[in-house]
Amino acid sequence: MDISNQLNRMDTQTKITLDDIIKKKLSPQQLREYNRIHYGQETLNELYIDEDITLKCKEKGIDIAGYNFPAAKEESRPPRRVKVGLIQHSIVLPTDKLVNEQRKAIFSKVSELIDIAASAGVQILCLQEAWSMPFFLCTGERKRWSDFAESATDGPSTKFLQKIAQKNKMVIISPILENDHGVWWNTAVVIDENGKYMGKHRKNHLPSVGSFSEIGYYEPGNMGHAVFDTTYGKIAVNICYGRHHALNWLMFGLNGAEIVFNPAATISEFGESFWGIEARNAAIANNYFTCSINRVGTEVFNVKKDEIREHNTMTVSRTYYGSSYITAPNGCRTPSLSRVKDGLLLGELDLNLCRQVKDRWGFNMTSRLDLYAKELAHIVQ
Amino acid sequence: MDISNQLNRMDTQTKITLDDIIKKKLSPQQLREYNRIHYGQETLNELYIDEDITLKCKEKGIDIAGYNFPAAKEESRPPRRVKVGLIQHSIVLPTDKLVNEQRKAIFSKVSELIDIAASAGVQILCLQEAWSMPFFLCTGERKRWSDFAESATDGPSTKFLQKIAQKNKMVIISPILENDHGVWWNTAVVIDENGKYMGKHRKNHLPSVGSFSEIGYYEPGNMGHAVFDTTYGKIAVNICYGRHHALNWLMFGLNGAEIVFNPAATISEFGESFWGIEARNAAIANNYFTCSINRVGTEVFNVKKDEIREHNTMTVSRTYYGSSYITAPNGCRTPSLSRVKDGLLLGELDLNLCRQVKDRWGFNMTSRLDLYAKELAHIVQ
Repeated sequence: MDISNQLNRMDTQTKITLDDIIKKKLSPQQLREYNRIHYGQETLNELYIDEDITLKCKEKGIDIAGYNFPAAKEESRPPRRVKVGLIQHSIVLPTDKLVNEQRKAIFSKVSELIDIAASAGVQILCLQEAWSMPFFLCTGERKRWSDFAESATDGPSTKFLQKIAQKNKMVIISPILENDHGVWWNTAVVIDENGKYMGKHRKNHLPSVGSFSEIGYYEPGNMGHAVFDTTYGKIAVNICYGRHHALNWLMFGLNGAEIVFNPAATISEFGESFWGIEARNAAIANNYFTCSINRVGTEVFNVKKDEIREHNTMTVSRTYYGSSYITAPNGCRTPSLSRVKDGLLLGELDLNLCRQVKDRWGFNMTSRLDLYAKELAHIVQ
Repeated sequence: MDISNQLNRMDTQTKITLDDIIKKKLSPQQLREYNRIHYGQETLNELYIDEDITLKCKEKGIDIAGYNFPAAKEESRPPRRVKVGLIQHSIVLPTDKLVNEQRKAIFSKVSELIDIAASAGVQILCLQEAWSMPFFLCTGERKRWSDFAESATDGPSTKFLQKIAQKNKMVIISPILENDHGVWWNTAVVIDENGKYMGKHRKNHLPSVGSFSEIGYYEPGNMGHAVFDTTYGKIAVNICYGRHHALNWLMFGLNGAEIVFNPAATISEFGESFWGIEARNAAIANNYFTCSINRVGTEVFNVKKDEIREHNTMTVSRTYYGSSYITAPNGCRTPSLSRVKDGLLLGELDLNLCRQVKDRWGFNMTSRLDLYAKELAHIVQ
């Protein structure tokens, strides 16, 4: 099935999404049923967004949306509401410009997007996978791009975001290409609301699909399944391809995560039909919030002949379909952001919902982990 | 959120489904996009069904549909096409009739449905959870219903289906309430195409949600994750609530299943929004086919005062939402059967697709099971 030439068919020109069309065509009653079946609730609980912000986004062509996931009132715990922000963005300059110029242009765009998120009160923000660079991992090239690989603790991306985090009292998850003493990793850095480096997580599962492989660039993560106990909630990061692995999601849950972010760089041919399923299923199975962020836009690379590559220059082009969304522990989800535009998705999440849903469904109570630990150990041998 | 009074809103009277409405309202191009996003492929590959069969179903108010999931041609393996049938049905008599009468009436209805499946060439058939009885487990009562609990090897349901299986050269999965020397189990019996008892599987995870609990009736399954190597393919059964557990699905996959059936008895309040997500996610994560079958119709019970229960007679009513569907290893799925009508869903599945998708996505290659076996063992301790 060749999907590539049908990409963005619905909204490249008009920027109208499938949901926009369906919203117009269904009666209010039918729309409630559509929402119930496809988003888990009849009426989507939209978040109030200041008009100034909405106008600014409209001017700049940024897709902005926000949803509220409240929890029931409890006797002993006050509500634990946290506002999260998910940013999806395209690169800015052509990929044959200097690394520093490309990065600077992305920094400038992202800075503006985070400003908007801050004005909307975002407390935890997550950027897309390898947000500060074009996703050159599809080229098979290394040397030319090596300046994009940076230190997790004091590389340019971390330094840049630390100031912003501190200024806005915002926890920021920054997925970068890490260079740790010459060894590369696909890493998410967590910066706390005081701008301090809090820790990092390394991508646990690496794709090798068709001609695309990350295995030549770095190893699978060696840091397990960290959960970061931030001021605003317990968070974890499942980077991109890790979303295909139920056990990866499970471990974050068992380690106490209340929100798991899934920053990604994924194209239509690589399972767009999975996109709405996997992170949503993980939220249901583990009773935490999941926040799925995907790149957006087309990136074109002129891949050059080098010592290994025999062929002449060729063009590699990849189009990311955005569609970032949030799922609550009860399986309710937001609609997706645009498939083609930069975007900011806001979510006001009451983290009390995690335990409430756990208590309702009893998935943890009935998980029989001892059985599976034995069965898995047996299978591995 | 009170869903109960909105149940079946779309189709109780008109029997029109949400998809029917959307089909009419969208342009062909928009419909392709709807299918791509929600069902994983632009054009649903409908199976030819003989006109006589379609007419018969129309007359009898049975929802029938069929879809084809082909695989690419391979050099060394011929196609391995198998036709599966999923039957969803309501009970027939009021639940205060004699057990034998109730069962006989269900047998008669199901016999007719299987006849139709046989005439459509079905080779592997699966019935819904506890198909031969009303789902009295919602009453909390035991004694009154105990005649419904039966032997897996030679109880009335097994005997009844063995003849049908042999006659039609059909493998049949028969989920029943098992009575094994006075101990009850929630069990799926597998009967081979010669009518022979092949084995059984016992439900691994038992729900206890709100006032509904199966824990008073039987224990969680003690037979692991059997895969049955039938003439038509390697199959397994994940009974109802087991679909919430990723590790349950995983073990069937690791044990070699190519199709996992998920017979269920589930009502709207218990996560209808999960229904389309979990089995579909399991198909994607484990690269096998999943077949989800749910009960349909409303069952009313007059629960009586007994030695334990203090209150007077009360009425318990539960409405099952049908919506049976099939998902392929590549995440493509069929639309759901009706939410309110008896139904037969046919699927022609080329089992070669399982390995093809595995080889494409590499989820097994990148699963790092050794890591998780260790982490799980650690967490259990």
